[in-house]
Amino acid sequence: MTRPPAAVGEKLEEVDTPALVLDLDAFEANLGTMKDSLRGRKIRVRPHAKCHKSVDIARAQLAAGAVGVCCQKVSEAEVLVEGGIADVLVSNEVVGAKKLARLAALSRRARLGVCVDHPDALRALAESGAECDVYVELEVGMKRCGVEPHTVVELASSIRKSSRLKFAGLQAYHGRAQHVRSLADRREAIDAAAKKVFQVKSLLEKAGIECPRVTGAGSGSYMLEVEAGAWDEIQPGSYVFMDADYARNEWAAPLPRFRHSLFVLTTVMSRPAPDRAIVDAGLKASSVDSGMPEVWQRPGLVYRSASDEHGWVEIGSPARPPELGEKLLLVPGHCDPTVNLYDWYVAVRAGRVEALWPVSARGAAL
Amino acid sequence: MTRPPAAVGEKLEEVDTPALVLDLDAFEANLGTMKDSLRGRKIRVRPHAKCHKSVDIARAQLAAGAVGVCCQKVSEAEVLVEGGIADVLVSNEVVGAKKLARLAALSRRARLGVCVDHPDALRALAESGAECDVYVELEVGMKRCGVEPHTVVELASSIRKSSRLKFAGLQAYHGRAQHVRSLADRREAIDAAAKKVFQVKSLLEKAGIECPRVTGAGSGSYMLEVEAGAWDEIQPGSYVFMDADYARNEWAAPLPRFRHSLFVLTTVMSRPAPDRAIVDAGLKASSVDSGMPEVWQRPGLVYRSASDEHGWVEIGSPARPPELGEKLLLVPGHCDPTVNLYDWYVAVRAGRVEALWPVSARGAAL
Repeated sequence: MTRPPAAVGEKLEEVDTPALVLDLDAFEANLGTMKDSLRGRKIRVRPHAKCHKSVDIARAQLAAGAVGVCCQKVSEAEVLVEGGIADVLVSNEVVGAKKLARLAALSRRARLGVCVDHPDALRALAESGAECDVYVELEVGMKRCGVEPHTVVELASSIRKSSRLKFAGLQAYHGRAQHVRSLADRREAIDAAAKKVFQVKSLLEKAGIECPRVTGAGSGSYMLEVEAGAWDEIQPGSYVFMDADYARNEWAAPLPRFRHSLFVLTTVMSRPAPDRAIVDAGLKASSVDSGMPEVWQRPGLVYRSASDEHGWVEIGSPARPPELGEKLLLVPGHCDPTVNLYDWYVAVRAGRVEALWPVSARGAAL
Repeated sequence: MTRPPAAVGEKLEEVDTPALVLDLDAFEANLGTMKDSLRGRKIRVRPHAKCHKSVDIARAQLAAGAVGVCCQKVSEAEVLVEGGIADVLVSNEVVGAKKLARLAALSRRARLGVCVDHPDALRALAESGAECDVYVELEVGMKRCGVEPHTVVELASSIRKSSRLKFAGLQAYHGRAQHVRSLADRREAIDAAAKKVFQVKSLLEKAGIECPRVTGAGSGSYMLEVEAGAWDEIQPGSYVFMDADYARNEWAAPLPRFRHSLFVLTTVMSRPAPDRAIVDAGLKASSVDSGMPEVWQRPGLVYRSASDEHGWVEIGSPARPPELGEKLLLVPGHCDPTVNLYDWYVAVRAGRVEALWPVSARGAAL
């Protein structure tokens, strides 16, 4: 684990760079906005911890009413359970003997869920000795993992034959819909997913198999799932941070608007030309898979490209040119892989470092 | 630090995934190829450690004749010096009081070099108390950091006024030239850079300032710098690994061909359709800034896209379809940011894990 880039009590300008900064006011507002948006609805919130990998943030989400959290990897679940999170869903398939042995051990320490989409994987899970909830992943438009409706019934009835495994319902997440820019198009995608969920529920009912729960949905669509009525539980992750890519979506009712709370603090390390500032945050400080980071509240400054340890910031004419040594805040293009680069959140309020939170599951990929 | 994905002595197929695998035979061959390519030349090799962030690899490079290593960050230099590397050049500008204080402390423990490209940065460096070699970075076509020729002379003469700092010469690296696909175009870029270096050397000579050394060059171009005759020292990094992006270059004399030694081992975690395998290595396991990873030695399998924890592998018709649970090797698109995602190299020879090497400076960004 690397040294933290700040000490509690320091001013934001004193924080060393590059640093992952969490604006606590905006973060807490986002927790509240999520809660408010669901007031009066019968829906469980199980936020996704894959984006924050933080026990501290998971605890704050539970305090704001979440029933538990999701993650994608057994190693993330281990860190979360170790940190006191008692209900964790690995919203993903787990394949391989070593991972299953660890999942089985963990299943005796916390309420655990996991997904399956193949009979061989289910057999291996049953043989591992794991005692947990099992969700069948339904393909609802993402074309990633997941099975078609008739296979759900076969897998569900196999799960029910195992003494230690419990058929908990469906994992039905439409990842591709999350960044569909137009709200109308997003709604169309989610409505199609809902139709497929209803079809499976009816097939299960005909087969006499109870479907306790349907879980899924993300920050870019969750109110559409809620309104479609086919889901019991939602799994939003990025709402706590709001990255630049999500911000490019059309945000309108029924989806509330979340605030940017996650930033990369960077220093201008070179001013080699009037139209160019070079900053010390490049590919190892902000993931660019979903576009470049954006310079926060400095009109005219545009982060154009990144190399490993450098970022090119173009200085447009209306801009106040940044000085050598000046610090800038960047809004990362994609929060999840950006967070995974850091060991520490520098949690800031009113321009002061209030806390240092470890990115507890950074690099936990097994 | 996360748990290692393997134990020494295990077979490659037993390694948990995703894992960063180093093929020791290919790695050692690359060290030898670099040495052979420079036989009879008067040129110092100072490999770049920013790509591997490993004390073990730095030691192997020194054993193969390197004079020291480069890195980009003070925190990387700290890890390397702590690991016993006695001669480290931070081939980058260091800006900010905290970083300079650490650089000054480190300069009393090892031979250290650093770059400057601004008089204010030089003043702060002098005031920090650092005792080290200082290189002026010359802009030679990358349009990143670095100054124009006349400014080099001003900075060099200022450095000579400081009692603790030593003007060590020029940092002249043309990063953009490294991935210019055609060798002829690459040579044109390096020849233009060489012309600028010669111009500066002549300006310095006229000003009565000795220029002890010119350092620069990367894996994609270094023999062109050697042949151009303007450099005394080269800084190749990626040659030890060879990523997929570098492999897309035209490789021909005078540049030798290096072998792929760095891989991401991944498991097929879902086989939801005949033409699609989903693997457990996504954006958090292989950086995609320079293109998708490539499936190694499995014709017909193409890694098409990545989400945070998943990769889509298309199964073409001539391919033997990968089975659920089968492991595949991927050649990462870009080695530097990929290595920075992992805590461990799984060093493999003849299909067995021979060693686990920590990615000692993973995340060292300050």
